[in-house]
Amino acid sequence: MRAVDVIRTKRDGHALSAQQIDAFVEAATYRTWPDYQVAALLMAVVLRGMDADETAQLTGAMVRSGVKLDWSALGAAVDKHSTGGVGDKTSLVLAPLVAAGGLIVPMISGRGLGHTGGTLDKLEAIPGFNVNLSVPEFRRVLKACGCAMIGQTSDIAPADKKLYALRDVTGTVESPYLICASIMSKKLAEGIGALVLDVKTGSGAFMKNEQDAAFLAELMVETGARMGKKMVALLTDMDQPLGRKVGNALEVEECVAVMRADGPQDLRELCLELAGWMFHLGGRDASLEHGRRRAAALLDSGAALEKFREMVRLQGGDPASIDDLSRLPRARSTIDVPSPRDGFVAAIQCEQLGTASVVLGGGRDRKEDAVDPAVGIVLHKKVQDRVAAGEALCTVHYNSEQLLAGARVLIERSYTIADAPPASARPLVGRIIRGASGEGS
Amino acid sequence: MRAVDVIRTKRDGHALSAQQIDAFVEAATYRTWPDYQVAALLMAVVLRGMDADETAQLTGAMVRSGVKLDWSALGAAVDKHSTGGVGDKTSLVLAPLVAAGGLIVPMISGRGLGHTGGTLDKLEAIPGFNVNLSVPEFRRVLKACGCAMIGQTSDIAPADKKLYALRDVTGTVESPYLICASIMSKKLAEGIGALVLDVKTGSGAFMKNEQDAAFLAELMVETGARMGKKMVALLTDMDQPLGRKVGNALEVEECVAVMRADGPQDLRELCLELAGWMFHLGGRDASLEHGRRRAAALLDSGAALEKFREMVRLQGGDPASIDDLSRLPRARSTIDVPSPRDGFVAAIQCEQLGTASVVLGGGRDRKEDAVDPAVGIVLHKKVQDRVAAGEALCTVHYNSEQLLAGARVLIERSYTIADAPPASARPLVGRIIRGASGEGS
Repeated sequence: MRAVDVIRTKRDGHALSAQQIDAFVEAATYRTWPDYQVAALLMAVVLRGMDADETAQLTGAMVRSGVKLDWSALGAAVDKHSTGGVGDKTSLVLAPLVAAGGLIVPMISGRGLGHTGGTLDKLEAIPGFNVNLSVPEFRRVLKACGCAMIGQTSDIAPADKKLYALRDVTGTVESPYLICASIMSKKLAEGIGALVLDVKTGSGAFMKNEQDAAFLAELMVETGARMGKKMVALLTDMDQPLGRKVGNALEVEECVAVMRADGPQDLRELCLELAGWMFHLGGRDASLEHGRRRAAALLDSGAALEKFREMVRLQGGDPASIDDLSRLPRARSTIDVPSPRDGFVAAIQCEQLGTASVVLGGGRDRKEDAVDPAVGIVLHKKVQDRVAAGEALCTVHYNSEQLLAGARVLIERSYTIADAPPASARPLVGRIIRGASGEGS
Repeated sequence: MRAVDVIRTKRDGHALSAQQIDAFVEAATYRTWPDYQVAALLMAVVLRGMDADETAQLTGAMVRSGVKLDWSALGAAVDKHSTGGVGDKTSLVLAPLVAAGGLIVPMISGRGLGHTGGTLDKLEAIPGFNVNLSVPEFRRVLKACGCAMIGQTSDIAPADKKLYALRDVTGTVESPYLICASIMSKKLAEGIGALVLDVKTGSGAFMKNEQDAAFLAELMVETGARMGKKMVALLTDMDQPLGRKVGNALEVEECVAVMRADGPQDLRELCLELAGWMFHLGGRDASLEHGRRRAAALLDSGAALEKFREMVRLQGGDPASIDDLSRLPRARSTIDVPSPRDGFVAAIQCEQLGTASVVLGGGRDRKEDAVDPAVGIVLHKKVQDRVAAGEALCTVHYNSEQLLAGARVLIERSYTIADAPPASARPLVGRIIRGASGEGS
């Protein structure tokens, strides 16, 4: 099979055959096609798209490029994936919560990039926490406590790593088909039976509009269902940060608060919804509602927090820092950002706020950057809140006056204060997209 | 300027700025962008297209990547470019013919690739003829006789060479914008004031349908006109071979016949039409009709042939071979292909016939292949001709029984014999597309 013929097929708008897709993924993994041919085909896919068969085939080929984990000896395994947002910290609650409910949660996560945070960066704010486990270590932790949270290993979907590196420099990241294959190949290789997708939409999400988000969600649900996985996607709001804290250690604090049956209502609510689906699709509960109730009980009883403490200990972290949050990294200084006027918070430009956290040092522009675990933003006012002139909108935790200066401009510009609250707000959880194999309630 | 931003601009369907195009062409020439980024942008151009400004900018940047020749000390320079076909040999007549009429014809041509022949291969069928002249040698021949025919030099539009090599292996050849820039950059670097384009359409052309051909023709005319060149494009028929001879030495013979005021009518007619335009746009004649009359007189008087003889001598070829055609390479064997039945020639599948000539050894599938100058096909019957069962449709000139076997199948299949002649035939010269600066008659 000649690479140029495969490229031409897609260029001319035809579907690629299973053989062509397998050849492409193998060639990308082992670099048997030159990068320029892979890049030309990627651009043709971006502009011509793929049908459901091609997307599933691509995803499957990427799974087969590496190892597929298998936890069947341990129990039913489920996971959640989020497309990312600002203050989006549910993974830290969900893994221990769902494990406390008796399912296996083998969570493989990423780092923050751009304006959104990353689960691994948050976990590493816990002193000693090690996200770089080998597969045998991963299995040991899972066996011991039912959940484990690690970073990408080189064994899992290596094709994705090769392809992503090339997509990043050839303007071929932004394709729902390629995004679907990238996300789903890694999740399907995790050896799970059910997957709950949290697809974010709004000013703090990668997909600003709901149509794009729904399209990607349907593609991922369909692809997972074809591979026999129970699937659901929730379109959730990211027009303002989730919870009140943005920044790595600050977000760990807030997750612990939720597991103490404390913490902000929106974060608790989304965790219950996602956990409810995980329990339901994972076969633990006959309905979403039963799953939600189980999740609430596990938060309220402290069982989820106990599981979190156990996982932190098993992954080398300091479990005492979970009970004494002052042991988490702390920024040297804090400063309030006051409201310029009386009124109501009409909107928070969420991407700008996320970028402010990156500017403070809490995130990264490039993969190589180090992050400062301590810095971040604590929001006192969210959309629809009344505020008086001079009252604090938020408190900035910072370690550098210079970085604060840049971040502060962004934070001030991200808040819109108006005379009246906005007429309506998008619900936290919007459309629910079910996979054929995910039916059952 | 980051390559990925340029790629994204085109991917998203926006026009590239002049600065972006200049950066791209420079990067492709000096390889300062990795090939995969160039390839991704090429694919985005193929699928998103370019507007007239972008196409002109791309062409101009490619011209500026190399040297621009200047013949203003010698006189008014004109040229003709054909998009290629089977038996398409007008260049060999036009260069001496138009030079005999007092214009400078600095013709830089290509080799055959695929089913079409190439001017350089035909010239090299003349014993000793050297197409590899340096620019000073090119100038010397032009100064001495007014025309010279050479191959691409590395000084002219080097960006095109780099880009073409990458397009060839990334499925990005077939784009009118890229084809236009490739052709026009080389022609504009030739230092001509006027250009006549012969855009072929039909079963033997690269563009099978007239719409595609007209689109490319308009693009090239517009691009040349923007650069201040007098431009015209003729859409001409390539549903059957031009003239009666296909093959390198055979085509030289046929051109000499035309310059002896002999030779097939269609070839003479097209040469007169193209030369008429060259004289007219080159400022030699006030109208196309005057140009045509001048051209006919130069063929009939033998002045064109005399000029051809002179050019052959100046480029190291054997001028005696022009007068004694038996000195040209001859195939060892010939064989007639008989008609299977009584009837009329309804169609000649021209690409298949061209491929048959390649199979015989007269052309090449890959750039590295050598060509056999002697082999080819002489057509006795063309479309609308009456033929009797067993009567020769054509004679094959061959040097290998094995190659003949393959070619013969293709030749037999390329002829369609029917009970009646086709109701209508496309005229040899169809639509004429004029550039704004090309007006004047």
